[in-house]
Amino acid sequence: MVVQPASQVTHTPYEELPGNVLGLRPDPQALFNHSPEVKLDLLKELTGKSVLSAYVFDKQKLLELFKFAALLQTGRFPASRALTGKILAAAFFEPSTRTRLSFESAMLRLGGETISVADAKTTGVAKGESLRDIGQMFNSYADIVVVRHTEQNAVQLLSEYLRVPLINGGNGSDEHPTQALADWYALLKWRPEIAFSKLPEDKKLHLGIVGTPGNMRTVKSFLIMALLMHENISDITIISEMADPLGPEIKDFCDKSPISFKFSNDLQGCLGDLDIIYMNSIAFLGDGYRHLSSNFVLSSKSPLKKDAVVLHPLARGPELDIDLDDTPHNLYFNQADGAVFVRQALLLTMLGRVETVLQGEYSS
Amino acid sequence: MVVQPASQVTHTPYEELPGNVLGLRPDPQALFNHSPEVKLDLLKELTGKSVLSAYVFDKQKLLELFKFAALLQTGRFPASRALTGKILAAAFFEPSTRTRLSFESAMLRLGGETISVADAKTTGVAKGESLRDIGQMFNSYADIVVVRHTEQNAVQLLSEYLRVPLINGGNGSDEHPTQALADWYALLKWRPEIAFSKLPEDKKLHLGIVGTPGNMRTVKSFLIMALLMHENISDITIISEMADPLGPEIKDFCDKSPISFKFSNDLQGCLGDLDIIYMNSIAFLGDGYRHLSSNFVLSSKSPLKKDAVVLHPLARGPELDIDLDDTPHNLYFNQADGAVFVRQALLLTMLGRVETVLQGEYSS
Amino acid sequence: MVVQPASQVTHTPYEELPGNVLGLRPDPQALFNHSPEVKLDLLKELTGKSVLSAYVFDKQKLLELFKFAALLQTGRFPASRALTGKILAAAFFEPSTRTRLSFESAMLRLGGETISVADAKTTGVAKGESLRDIGQMFNSYADIVVVRHTEQNAVQLLSEYLRVPLINGGNGSDEHPTQALADWYALLKWRPEIAFSKLPEDKKLHLGIVGTPGNMRTVKSFLIMALLMHENISDITIISEMADPLGPEIKDFCDKSPISFKFSNDLQGCLGDLDIIYMNSIAFLGDGYRHLSSNFVLSSKSPLKKDAVVLHPLARGPELDIDLDDTPHNLYFNQADGAVFVRQALLLTMLGRVETVLQGEYSS
Repeated sequence: MVVQPASQVTHTPYEELPGNVLGLRPDPQALFNHSPEVKLDLLKELTGKSVLSAYVFDKQKLLELFKFAALLQTGRFPASRALTGKILAAAFFEPSTRTRLSFESAMLRLGGETISVADAKTTGVAKGESLRDIGQMFNSYADIVVVRHTEQNAVQLLSEYLRVPLINGGNGSDEHPTQALADWYALLKWRPEIAFSKLPEDKKLHLGIVGTPGNMRTVKSFLIMALLMHENISDITIISEMADPLGPEIKDFCDKSPISFKFSNDLQGCLGDLDIIYMNSIAFLGDGYRHLSSNFVLSSKSPLKKDAVVLHPLARGPELDIDLDDTPHNLYFNQADGAVFVRQALLLTMLGRVETVLQGEYSS
Repeated sequence: MVVQPASQVTHTPYEELPGNVLGLRPDPQALFNHSPEVKLDLLKELTGKSVLSAYVFDKQKLLELFKFAALLQTGRFPASRALTGKILAAAFFEPSTRTRLSFESAMLRLGGETISVADAKTTGVAKGESLRDIGQMFNSYADIVVVRHTEQNAVQLLSEYLRVPLINGGNGSDEHPTQALADWYALLKWRPEIAFSKLPEDKKLHLGIVGTPGNMRTVKSFLIMALLMHENISDITIISEMADPLGPEIKDFCDKSPISFKFSNDLQGCLGDLDIIYMNSIAFLGDGYRHLSSNFVLSSKSPLKKDAVVLHPLARGPELDIDLDDTPHNLYFNQADGAVFVRQALLLTMLGRVETVLQGEYSS
Repeated sequence: MVVQPASQVTHTPYEELPGNVLGLRPDPQALFNHSPEVKLDLLKELTGKSVLSAYVFDKQKLLELFKFAALLQTGRFPASRALTGKILAAAFFEPSTRTRLSFESAMLRLGGETISVADAKTTGVAKGESLRDIGQMFNSYADIVVVRHTEQNAVQLLSEYLRVPLINGGNGSDEHPTQALADWYALLKWRPEIAFSKLPEDKKLHLGIVGTPGNMRTVKSFLIMALLMHENISDITIISEMADPLGPEIKDFCDKSPISFKFSNDLQGCLGDLDIIYMNSIAFLGDGYRHLSSNFVLSSKSPLKKDAVVLHPLARGPELDIDLDDTPHNLYFNQADGAVFVRQALLLTMLGRVETVLQGEYSS
C-alpha cells in the first residue's frame, strides 16, 4: 500500500493558519515524506492483541500506525462504515471526559456502536463485583473494550477472563498508552525526521519532561515511546521536585538507552535547551490526584526556544497558561485533534479492518 | 417550499381524543392554516450559528422553525437518515433527564449519533478542567454540542474555543432557549393565530407567568419569546412573592414592549383573567434549587377559565396537581411530545440539512 | 416456522471445549431436539405487551421465546438491522452494569439505538421528578423502555402514563423477570428435557435455591419460572437462615404446585441431593443490600453431585469461589452469554419483529 504525496509536504507557517484555530496544525501528509508505504504486515501483528502498555509498540509498528492514522485524517480513505456491527465497551471506573469521549467518537465515526460505564458508582462494582467477572461479561456484550481504573492491577484483572481485545485507557499511576500515541502522533506530524531520518549530532532534539514518570501514567507511557526514538533524541531532562522521579522499573529502561538523562528542579533554567516540553498537571498518588508544584508554570513569558513546542495531555491546571494557546509553541491542541484519528487507526488495526479500509471498500 | 394543508385544520375536541393520551393534542398542521410556505432562506440564516439565548430568534425565524418541526411531526418528510455521520455531544454538567434524553432521541431519530456527559462528576471537570479546553476538545469529537451547567457563564466559556455550533441547554439561572422553543411550539399549534393573525382587541390573550423570570431560566427564555408575540398578547401578569421578579436585564426589555405588565402574589385571584398559565417548579438560586411557595398550586379545583391552558416544562413539583392531567387545560404533555420535533428541526437547521429533508432525499 | 436440526444435538463434553472458555457451553440447537417448530402465534401474543413480572410468561410462550433466542444465537437468522429506527430507553435509577449493558448491547446488535439513564443522581428525579411524568416523557423519546429502581412500586408508577412497552429490569426486592429468562434459557439449553419431555420419576430433578425468594428479586423471578417446570422438577429445597424465606405472596403459589418444597439452613448437607443450585449474593432489604451468610459458600471442594450445575446471576460475592469457574459445574458464565440473545428475542417479540427476522428479511 503505497501513498505518494504529490511532493515533499512542508507545514503552513503559523501566522498563515486560519484565525479560528489555535496552535500549530502540521499537515498529516508530512508523515509520508520519508516513507510512502503503509506496511500492512506490521499492523496485522496487532490484530486481536490487547494494548495494556506502551511497550507493545516497537518503533516500526508505531510508525505504520501513525501513517494509517494520517491517511484517515486526510480523509482519503473513507471509513465511516468500517466497523458497522462492532461494539466498543468503554468501561471508565475512574472519571474521564477526554479519553472516553474520544474513543466513543472514534468508534461512532467508523460506523461502530458504544456501550459505556462513565462512573464506577453506576455499576455492580459498587456492590463488590469482581473485575474478572466484568471481563467475562464483556465477552458477550462487546467486540473490544477500553478500560480506565484507579487501580494499577485492574487492567490485568479485567483481562484474565476476557477473550476480546482490551485497551488500557489509564490504570492508576501506571500507564496510558493511547495518550502516548496521541502525543507522538502530534510530534511526528510536526517533525517526521525524528522517527524517519538520522539527524546530524547538532540537530538532534532535547526533550524536557515536567513531572514524575514513576507515578504519572501519561508521562510514563510518553517516556516509553520516547526511548524508541533514541536515534534522534540526544537528551531527556526530567524536571521534578521529587527525589526519584523515574522509579525503579522505568529507571532500568532509561539506563539502557543511549539517550542522556538529566534531572532538574528548575524548569525556567532548563527551557533554553529544550526543543520539546511535555507537561502534565497531575500525579495520581494512590489515594487521589496531586497538582504540580507552582514552580512549574509555562506562559508566553517563559524563555522558550523559538521553535520549541509544548505538549500537554489536558485537562490542564495552572501549570499551562492560556496565553500560550495562540502561539506556535502550542502543539497540545493538535494532540487533542489527532487523538480521534490515532484511536480510529488503533481500533481498525486491533479489529483487523485496516486492509478493507485501504482497499476503499467503504468509499461510497 | 409550499405546504398545502387539505383544508383549514381544526383540532379534535378533547373528549374525542384517544383515551390513552392525556391532555390536549393539537394538530401540527394547524400551523399551516395561515402560512403554507416554509421560508428556507430564513432558516439558512441559523445554519452554523450557536443558540445561546432565546434572543437569537426573531419572530419570523421562530415561525419557520416551528413550521419545519410540524412537517417533521406529521411524518410527511422522512428524515431518519438526515444526520447520518454527524455526532451530537450532550455535555450535561448539571443533572437532567428530559433535556438530555430529548436531544439524544432527536439526534438518533435523524440517523446521527451521540456522545454524552450525564454527570459533571464523571468528567475531568472534577479535576478542574477548564470549560474553554472542553470546548476545544469538542471541535474534534463532535459536529454540534448541547451544554447544561450550573453556572451562567459556563456556556460563554465553553464557546470561546469551540468552532462547531453550540446549543445552550440551560445555564444556571440564566436561559434555556430550547425549552422555550418547545413551549411556544405547543402554544402555536394550539392557537396559530397568536403568531399569524392580527386579533381584535377583545380576543387578545392574557398570559400569566408563575415564577421569577429574573432567576428561573425556563421562565426567562419563555418570556423573551412571548415579547415577540406582542401583537396578540395584551397583558402579562407575573405571579410571584419576590419583590423584583423580573430583575434588571429582562425588565428593560419588558418596559419597551407594548404588552401591559402586571404583578401579583395571588395566583387564585388572577386565574379568572388568564388564557395561558406558564408554571415552573423550581428556581435556581446559585447554590441550588428552591421550590415555589405552596400558595402557587394549580389543580382541577382551581378557578381556571374554560379554555385556559397550562404550560409547565416539567419535572413538576407539588405546584401542579396530577388531577389536571386528564383535562383540556393540560398542554404540558403536548409540550413534552413536541420537544423532540422542535429539537430535530433545530439540529437540522443548525447543521444545514433543512433543504435536503424537504426535497425528500431521505424518503426511502 | 420449522427448524430442523441435522440430527439430535448432544453437547460437547466439557474437557473438549476450547481452553479459553470457562464453564459449560451447551449447544443452543439442543432446544430443537424435542420441538423443531417456532410457534409465531404464541410469540405474537407478547407484542406490544409490557413485561413487569415473570408471571406474564406461561410455559409455552417461554419455550417459544427460548427457541427464538437459540435461533439468534446460532446466527442462522441475521437480525443486525431488525430494529433500525427503534430506540430503547434504559432507565436505571439503581446502579447496574450487567443488565443495562446487556440490554444496550442487545438493542445495538439489532440495529436499534439506546438512550440511557445510568444513575438516578443524573436525572430530574434528583429534583423530585415523578415517575408517572417520566413515563409520559418516554412516550415521545423511545419505542420501548427498560427500568430498574430501588422501589418496588416504581415500575407500576412508571407504566401508568406510558404507552410503549415496558420491561422490568429489577424493582427493589420484588422481581427481575429478564434475569430469570437468562437463567432458564441456560438451563434448558443444558437439559431441554426438563421442559420438553416427561421424565421418569427417578430422573426428575431436585433444585436448590440459596437465598430468600421473598426479598431477593432474581431468586423470586427464577422460582416463578421454576414452578412452570413442575412436571420434571420433583423437589425444590430453599436454603436460607431466614425463618420465612418465601414470604406470603410466593408461598401461596408454591403451596399450589405439585413440586415438593423443603427448607434447610445447611447448604453443605443438601448438596448431595441437588442437580441444580441457584445462588445469588445479595438481598435487597429496602434500605440497601445484604450479603448472604458466610455459611453459604460453594467451591470446588463442595460435595456437589457429579453432574450438578450452579447458576448465579452475578455479580458474585464470596459465596461463589472462582475455583468453580473452570469446572463443568459452572453454568453461570453461559447464563451471562445467553442473556444478550434472550433479551434480543424479547425485544424483537415485544416490538413485533419476529416474523420479519425469521423470513430472512435482514439477511444481507
